[in-house]
Amino acid sequence: MLPLTAFSLSEKQVHLFDFHPIMESAIGVLVSQFKAYAGKDGSSDTLSRDEFQKLVKSELSNFVKNASDPAAIDQLMSSLDMDNDGELCFLEFWQLIGRLANKHGGFSQ
Amino acid sequence: MLPLTAFSLSEKQVHLFDFHPIMESAIGVLVSQFKAYAGKDGSSDTLSRDEFQKLVKSELSNFVKNASDPAAIDQLMSSLDMDNDGELCFLEFWQLIGRLANKHGGFSQ
Repeated sequence: MLPLTAFSLSEKQVHLFDFHPIMESAIGVLVSQFKAYAGKDGSSDTLSRDEFQKLVKSELSNFVKNASDPAAIDQLMSSLDMDNDGELCFLEFWQLIGRLANKHGGFSQ
Repeated sequence: MLPLTAFSLSEKQVHLFDFHPIMESAIGVLVSQFKAYAGKDGSSDTLSRDEFQKLVKSELSNFVKNASDPAAIDQLMSSLDMDNDGELCFLEFWQLIGRLANKHGGFSQ
């Protein structure tokens, strides 16, 4: 792979990077990042409390308030954990991403 | 911006492109692409039937079956249009992206 220096790409240029339409590439990134954190301990299909804390702190620090406050993130996790099993499956996690995207887009709540 | 030739970037390198954690960048892409299609006619916060057809055909052609079949996409749109107003708001659209991401990730349905 060519060594890259820091610069910014327009969305059109990002299409180059894996020849998928850009929305599918973005979906692929969200799935692979979820799996990267979910695979650290226990089931690789769900996020444990610890995995969720790490993911929010390093991946969603601009979009989630108090991303480095463990108590706040525990509370956020319980609001997402529909079946109260102490883990977040992908679709439970996806609710959070939807709320963040909706807010980021400035759409009505 | 530097002219780019076709090559592939690792996810780490994609971080370079706008200095956000990559999950936030991917969320930003999904929001901006939704807005790009939603802004073509009528309200710029919702997808009309025509805008949804165009988006699915050009952006989700690998992830959505029969992406070029208008009747199939109309059916898909009605399954998402919770309030039956003939338009898809962002959160209604987000359900589709969640289903596609869940399937793409191979998670249990």
